[in-house]
Amino acid sequence: MEIKKIGFIGTGVMGFPMVKHLLDAGFKVNVYTRTKDRALPLIEQGAVWCETPKDCATDCDVVISIVGYPQDVREVWLARSTGAIYGMKQGAIGMDMTTSSPDLATELYKCAKSKGVSLCDCPVTGGDIGARNATLTMLFGGDKETFDALEPVFKVLGKRWEYFGDAGKGQLAKACNQVAVATTMFSACEAIVFARGMGLDPKQIIDTLSAGAAGSFSLQSYGPRILNRDFDPGFKIDHFLKDMEIALKVCHDRGISLPGLDLAYKSYSMLKQMGKGDLGTQALYLFYSSALIPDLLAHDFNDDASDPDLA
Amino acid sequence: MEIKKIGFIGTGVMGFPMVKHLLDAGFKVNVYTRTKDRALPLIEQGAVWCETPKDCATDCDVVISIVGYPQDVREVWLARSTGAIYGMKQGAIGMDMTTSSPDLATELYKCAKSKGVSLCDCPVTGGDIGARNATLTMLFGGDKETFDALEPVFKVLGKRWEYFGDAGKGQLAKACNQVAVATTMFSACEAIVFARGMGLDPKQIIDTLSAGAAGSFSLQSYGPRILNRDFDPGFKIDHFLKDMEIALKVCHDRGISLPGLDLAYKSYSMLKQMGKGDLGTQALYLFYSSALIPDLLAHDFNDDASDPDLA
Repeated sequence: MEIKKIGFIGTGVMGFPMVKHLLDAGFKVNVYTRTKDRALPLIEQGAVWCETPKDCATDCDVVISIVGYPQDVREVWLARSTGAIYGMKQGAIGMDMTTSSPDLATELYKCAKSKGVSLCDCPVTGGDIGARNATLTMLFGGDKETFDALEPVFKVLGKRWEYFGDAGKGQLAKACNQVAVATTMFSACEAIVFARGMGLDPKQIIDTLSAGAAGSFSLQSYGPRILNRDFDPGFKIDHFLKDMEIALKVCHDRGISLPGLDLAYKSYSMLKQMGKGDLGTQALYLFYSSALIPDLLAHDFNDDASDPDLA
Repeated sequence: MEIKKIGFIGTGVMGFPMVKHLLDAGFKVNVYTRTKDRALPLIEQGAVWCETPKDCATDCDVVISIVGYPQDVREVWLARSTGAIYGMKQGAIGMDMTTSSPDLATELYKCAKSKGVSLCDCPVTGGDIGARNATLTMLFGGDKETFDALEPVFKVLGKRWEYFGDAGKGQLAKACNQVAVATTMFSACEAIVFARGMGLDPKQIIDTLSAGAAGSFSLQSYGPRILNRDFDPGFKIDHFLKDMEIALKVCHDRGISLPGLDLAYKSYSMLKQMGKGDLGTQALYLFYSSALIPDLLAHDFNDDASDPDLA
């Protein structure tokens, strides 16, 4: 099958630049997204607007979704009369790139199979920067021949694509990534809290320790942002909580206990309760500084003048 | 002051290769260590054996210690009639490179000052490999002029030396490193436990995720060892517990709470109780697998045939 026409559902912070890359690469692209305004620059560039996911999928060789939450995934693919799965032609491939539930991915796969189309789960790592620079890593679960057939699309969207196994395994690999990320942010935050509390220069600490056994992406990339009190997302706490809930659910179902993940989930949940769900994951730091300086949360945390000395 | 003669106390897994480098660089070296046999190859290479730390320090320009625990540090420097501090000539520099207590470092500094000598704390990161390859990073606390004077020694032992502030700050910087390390090992172990539990290939997971936001030294360097069931130290759990106790003590004294560090300390303490204190820190993995497979600890964990499939 040659891939000529792609239906794309969800043109948010991730999907928008991905559609741009697909158009640049010469694919015909149908688009659907909740708020049409956000897709307008893509329509100007040649994408065709569709009123429903079903219309978006019609006549396409490949249909891609990257939306918010598992319930959104369910709706765009399966909703009666508007679901993408009902618009797909025989032999077409659907690919959900949302970070979503492994169980839902398996359910979608089976439902698609029964209708003569193929569906796979392929969440990504690399964030909005990876989407813009086409450097995403794609974590695939589904049929191997589907994986192979999608190579022309993978090439345009990222620089690495990995086959992890049958349907749901891509979501499980992404959940595994979130499990690994969950505790490294503690490492970065606690090193900075400790350094400040002990009168060490936290910048010197990050520079010196990043090169060694304490090194991590979190310390190296988020450490400096924390020092600048830059808590903008990056990756929102609300979304991270969703991802951790997915991981915790599959752990619970299989009797696996991960105390580091539990700690991360509890701490981020408290931040959300404190009204910080819209901040980036590096705002875990506020969990510590607010404990140390109770008044901090009453202040504007973006106000440089209030930068606390925790000593 | 030109540094010609160095007294070196403690020729264990770290000190031994450090003395070799100093001899190779042309320094005269006195050595003292608890078990003389371990120093014999150094004596053959030209080091001079001394019966006490005090003798070891006599006539030296610089006296270095790198021993096991804070109580050992106290003993080699301060013990009545045998302590190194009582052998040092006026103007000499003492440097404790053990990972030890910041408070003890301050105490030693003051005691030395009162005797007309200078003492500093300079623990290292980089482990036994860093000691052998002379690639250590040295974390200095003490007088700035002492730091500057020691450059000819630093150059021989490692590739980076950082001035963190007055006496005790080197130990605090090292404690900060251990705080940062504590939680990253959870990230590596939980990612592997999750991958295995979900039927993913943990090697593929490590390879794929190490390049992104989940990346850390622990995942990249210890992940593969865990997969090979290689729990040899590297860095012993017993020593890591000592280091975490130092960090927890200074946190407690200053009213700082670090839940990630707490979790690490509790988990490693349980491993020690299970008789695993001699294993490397990556044996944190056994904490998870033993919870999942209660019989595991009854087996020889080095027996490849017993490699558990946690699915």
